[in-house]
Amino acid sequence: MSAHDETTATTTIPTDTDRLAAAAWSRVAEPTDAAACALIGVLGPAPAWQWLSDGADPAELLHGDLAQPARRVITQARERWLPRVGDATPEADLDHIIRLGGAYIVPGDPEWPEILTDCADAPWGLWVRGQRQRLRDLGEDTLALVGARAPTRYGINATHAITAEAARAGHGIISGGAYGIDTAALRTALAYDVAVASVFAGGLDRWYPAHNASLFDGLIASGVAISAYPPRSRPARWRFLDRNWLIAALSAGTVVVEASARSGALNTAAHVRELGRHVGAVPGPIDSVMSHGCHTLLREGAQLITSGRDASEMIRPLGATRPARLPKRRGLLDGLDAHAARTLDAMPVASAASVSAIVRAAGLSASDVMVALAHLELAGRIAREGSMYRRVPTPKD
Amino acid sequence: MSAHDETTATTTIPTDTDRLAAAAWSRVAEPTDAAACALIGVLGPAPAWQWLSDGADPAELLHGDLAQPARRVITQARERWLPRVGDATPEADLDHIIRLGGAYIVPGDPEWPEILTDCADAPWGLWVRGQRQRLRDLGEDTLALVGARAPTRYGINATHAITAEAARAGHGIISGGAYGIDTAALRTALAYDVAVASVFAGGLDRWYPAHNASLFDGLIASGVAISAYPPRSRPARWRFLDRNWLIAALSAGTVVVEASARSGALNTAAHVRELGRHVGAVPGPIDSVMSHGCHTLLREGAQLITSGRDASEMIRPLGATRPARLPKRRGLLDGLDAHAARTLDAMPVASAASVSAIVRAAGLSASDVMVALAHLELAGRIAREGSMYRRVPTPKD
Repeated sequence: MSAHDETTATTTIPTDTDRLAAAAWSRVAEPTDAAACALIGVLGPAPAWQWLSDGADPAELLHGDLAQPARRVITQARERWLPRVGDATPEADLDHIIRLGGAYIVPGDPEWPEILTDCADAPWGLWVRGQRQRLRDLGEDTLALVGARAPTRYGINATHAITAEAARAGHGIISGGAYGIDTAALRTALAYDVAVASVFAGGLDRWYPAHNASLFDGLIASGVAISAYPPRSRPARWRFLDRNWLIAALSAGTVVVEASARSGALNTAAHVRELGRHVGAVPGPIDSVMSHGCHTLLREGAQLITSGRDASEMIRPLGATRPARLPKRRGLLDGLDAHAARTLDAMPVASAASVSAIVRAAGLSASDVMVALAHLELAGRIAREGSMYRRVPTPKD
Repeated sequence: MSAHDETTATTTIPTDTDRLAAAAWSRVAEPTDAAACALIGVLGPAPAWQWLSDGADPAELLHGDLAQPARRVITQARERWLPRVGDATPEADLDHIIRLGGAYIVPGDPEWPEILTDCADAPWGLWVRGQRQRLRDLGEDTLALVGARAPTRYGINATHAITAEAARAGHGIISGGAYGIDTAALRTALAYDVAVASVFAGGLDRWYPAHNASLFDGLIASGVAISAYPPRSRPARWRFLDRNWLIAALSAGTVVVEASARSGALNTAAHVRELGRHVGAVPGPIDSVMSHGCHTLLREGAQLITSGRDASEMIRPLGATRPARLPKRRGLLDGLDAHAARTLDAMPVASAASVSAIVRAAGLSASDVMVALAHLELAGRIAREGSMYRRVPTPKD
């Protein structure tokens, strides 16, 4: 079948076929894979999946009428996607999430969060557990709180105070499920009758981090757990950046409570701005390394947040309108740095791995992985052992 | 004698008569009394004092040709000044300061800080004790540190750290002599071989606060103590605001380390901006009331300072030029900018002109021209020759 014969608008009621196809795609492509977002958006999930599982011939797209750059992008993406097609088990994944009391929500479902509709590259589906009707409450009034996994007592206290004041004012609260600031924000927010959500970087079949299991059980009793990844997905490092993107996308503004100078929270802030959402940062003692990242954000124009009221005014400024949302599409072909980071993260911590194993784990094309491996080797981060590669321990690892 | 018969330019070598008259004025008028600044600037200290002690008849100023608004201002100022004329004991005050190893420095003295010449309403003299040759070192590279009188341990530590790093980088340090942040900044700065100055809100014959006497004795051994007030002046509350203005005027930028929400430091920041100087603030814990004022300043655009290096870059930004200094006229002298430009434009390019010739050429009132001339003179754009004025060539002319 050629892709253009049948397109399914994502805003009409989704069919079972669409839902299954979207679920399959969530196994094959990362949720911020711009080529996948574009293809699924244009063709609809089912025709896109049909095309992919039929061999993904670029000539079959749009009567083969693809412009040369698009053809190159699709050809490269195909190399990422095809090695994973055999791993897709959408029926089993849907059964799995339903047995856990959850669902796979796609655009057109009544629960689909409207705020995602103005984001370029929003995921084409969300795996959820808990009170999924709360999904629609996320948006204009939702505040995201994120920050360090190893915060100071000051950071924990600040998170409690700001979250509690914002929740008392009726704001929904969204965060990740990580230790530290995320945990503090979730724990506090769950004491209030507001929408509470947590976005995970892996499948919802297994709580990560495991020590927070009772917190997450509490979360799904009154709030909602969200992931772009199907069950059994590993919370790999690069997925935390995508998770942070989704946290930002599902909220009106993100407050970074504590962050070290090289924290992922700084990347998050850049994403938040690209999404046209507000960025706030909490100041702290100048001699606390956990505040250095926040001070950097403040220098770069983040709003200074010292209370829940500040956070509230950031996203609901009195007499002001919501800032224009100017979603900026991220490059289809982001440079090496991202590939290298992802390739490295896909490698086992203590043993050697073959290139094909790394390709499958990374979800990148073999050629991308080869280039990344060459650069990582030059940088001294990995070493070759015959035809295998192994991480070189660094002080930071 | 009528005021216009004899004028002495403040930029030529000051005479004993001028110094005595300026000292007398420092007893009679507060240093930021804009009417006194303008009058002394236009007439010179001695003729201005002569006019005041003769009864201060507005009709005697500029052939009695004062415009109605200026006449009203002078009449009101006269009510402030005349009751104090009998208190003026300039000879005794000069003797007093000299016995203390000090001096009364006026424009034209080699020690007069050049950085004051671009300030509107700068005082017409400075009482000093200690190493007065250090006065000229104050300016472009000088950093002011100010803040709470009752700081936290965090504020003290931050002051020490920032001051030490800035002093090691060669910056002069200026502050007040108050307990708390001022004291911490002074104490730290005195350990380094840089210009150190403290500005006082009362006479230099008696150290205030008295408990800091040994610190101030150390200050005058290697740095300089400065006051706009003659000996025996009480450090009244309103004088602390004027003192803060002078601290800002004598530095390239002011860092507020800790300040409560209603601190005088917030007023200071407004003055600093009016002077075209930089304002920085040190962030702190959100639950510390002593950081609330700093957080307010940061919201209002103050630069975020977490280190001496930050402070250094604030006043000496790499690759950046000094910000335009736009002295904003206060109170009496509103609207100067346009008048000053017009007055300057009305002056001959290469020869001197009388006030009345300039008035005719400018098409402005005599009083407007008089005020404009005072400011142009303070700004170094024109110089007096007897009762005439002449343009001072500048690189831009």
